[in-house]
Amino acid sequence: MKEVALGIDIGGTNTVFGFIDREGHTLAESSISTKAHLDVRSYLKALHDKIQEIMSTLKTEVVLKGIGVGAPNGNYYKGTIENAPNLTWGKMVHFTDLLKDYYQVPIVLTNDANAAAIGEKIYGGAKSMSDFIVITLGTGLGSGIFVNGKVMYGHDGFAGELGHVTVNYNGRQCGCGRKGCLETYVSATGIKRTVYKLLADYTDPSVLRGISFDTLSAEMITKAAKEGDRIGIEAFEYTGKILGKKLADFVTFSSPEAIFLFGGLARAEEFIFRPTIQHMEENLMPVFRNKVKILPSSLMERNAAILGASALLWMELEK
Amino acid sequence: MKEVALGIDIGGTNTVFGFIDREGHTLAESSISTKAHLDVRSYLKALHDKIQEIMSTLKTEVVLKGIGVGAPNGNYYKGTIENAPNLTWGKMVHFTDLLKDYYQVPIVLTNDANAAAIGEKIYGGAKSMSDFIVITLGTGLGSGIFVNGKVMYGHDGFAGELGHVTVNYNGRQCGCGRKGCLETYVSATGIKRTVYKLLADYTDPSVLRGISFDTLSAEMITKAAKEGDRIGIEAFEYTGKILGKKLADFVTFSSPEAIFLFGGLARAEEFIFRPTIQHMEENLMPVFRNKVKILPSSLMERNAAILGASALLWMELEK
Repeated sequence: MKEVALGIDIGGTNTVFGFIDREGHTLAESSISTKAHLDVRSYLKALHDKIQEIMSTLKTEVVLKGIGVGAPNGNYYKGTIENAPNLTWGKMVHFTDLLKDYYQVPIVLTNDANAAAIGEKIYGGAKSMSDFIVITLGTGLGSGIFVNGKVMYGHDGFAGELGHVTVNYNGRQCGCGRKGCLETYVSATGIKRTVYKLLADYTDPSVLRGISFDTLSAEMITKAAKEGDRIGIEAFEYTGKILGKKLADFVTFSSPEAIFLFGGLARAEEFIFRPTIQHMEENLMPVFRNKVKILPSSLMERNAAILGASALLWMELEK
Repeated sequence: MKEVALGIDIGGTNTVFGFIDREGHTLAESSISTKAHLDVRSYLKALHDKIQEIMSTLKTEVVLKGIGVGAPNGNYYKGTIENAPNLTWGKMVHFTDLLKDYYQVPIVLTNDANAAAIGEKIYGGAKSMSDFIVITLGTGLGSGIFVNGKVMYGHDGFAGELGHVTVNYNGRQCGCGRKGCLETYVSATGIKRTVYKLLADYTDPSVLRGISFDTLSAEMITKAAKEGDRIGIEAFEYTGKILGKKLADFVTFSSPEAIFLFGGLARAEEFIFRPTIQHMEENLMPVFRNKVKILPSSLMERNAAILGASALLWMELEK
């Protein structure tokens, strides 16, 4: 009999899930389409059917200890998904309550960036750390913050929205309705916008001049930079400079042992890490200098979203 | 037999201390000069002598449960005072270790802003709150941050240096060696600098034109504003605008239930609170709007420094 957690990660396009043991081994994983279900009840039925199907194929006999869910705009306190822009299930979805109709085990939910941070704590590079930050660099910029060994949820469950600290009050338009938020500069979308700004401002030849905005990806920019493209390299410099300066502010707030970068942009290695570290150090107050590690997430090459969701459950059971 | 804590607050000029019970009643208080003692050992001997003298005059019989110390640059983890600019006792003072030669009771130490936050939690307006921030507006800007019902000390004990987030990378020179830190704008010294900038930029008549920089105090600026002086009013607008914008960033970090303002500037009432709240709300991302209370500290008219230091001890004993 093996004790397992079911980790579920809800994305706008697909939902992935897996059965994970306490050591982080995946017994099985699968997925269903999220966007095929306009209604959350039909979605949950399809998800339950698929989970049962996968569970029946497991070779080991398992005890399901509980379910962890990572969801966009997920609220840990209420188990709700609130105002998620890429989901069509309504403004306020009582997700854990609905899932309890199918499973009578502990169910916990949080947002995807918090789940990534918990995954780093339970299975990754932060096992021995009590105070650290995980920054997820995807379409936007998400963050999960550990303080005193626990996720900082804040008063209402929405702490750690670091993608929305302001870089420039007259800056780029943000999806949140304001201007100049960090994620409009530092994210896969942000660096695309920076490439287009640089292509407009400078005349350097660049392979990126042949690619439309809709086609351009962070991977293409990374590839260009690695091949010596001036615009590609400069785009990472610009991104790392803004990120580094803001990390210096975050350090004055929570004084973390390390900050982990997760997601596509972090794969650009020294192109993003070097300017980020340089500008963070230059902007730190003296007491914090040469203390804070900036590290790539150790879960990047693994099924991080499912691991993070299952880690949330294990962390909850340890309370 | 009454259980009491000894609360000690070390300032650059004077040290104040008092015997406080769990409900916040002061049985007795007194002070000694800090700056008269260039050496920490002679300081401690004088402090001990004075404490024993006061203790012998108490009318109630007391049990000393322990000592809480608030100190500039105090490190909770190590019980040290590190690189305190206004003390002459060396770069690294092992304060609690030295004090243990005199008192064999639990001794805890933290910085003055954390002590103010703990005072607010134990005796003040934050009794029922788990997540809140206290901003102390004195010569500089200090902060104490509660997360999950506990002070956030961070990895190394130096979390919560919000006076040193950057407002303007080419801005005012700061005592920390960098430029444009929040406390160069938002503090008693910051608003003096702002008054002088406004007197330079504009030609409005003002009572403040007759006062030298060295003589000018935050109280004088408050008085001028309350009497309708344009420069005085505008100085608070400018200060509140910068503070409000930064509070919006702090909310995205820890999502507090309330932010308390403590110290001289907070006595300017609506002159500082109205622009601060307005600019915070304008700059909050939608999910946080109309949720976070901005309040004056409820300890301002009391012996807050001693209360905060004693509260630190009570909080430690509750662990």
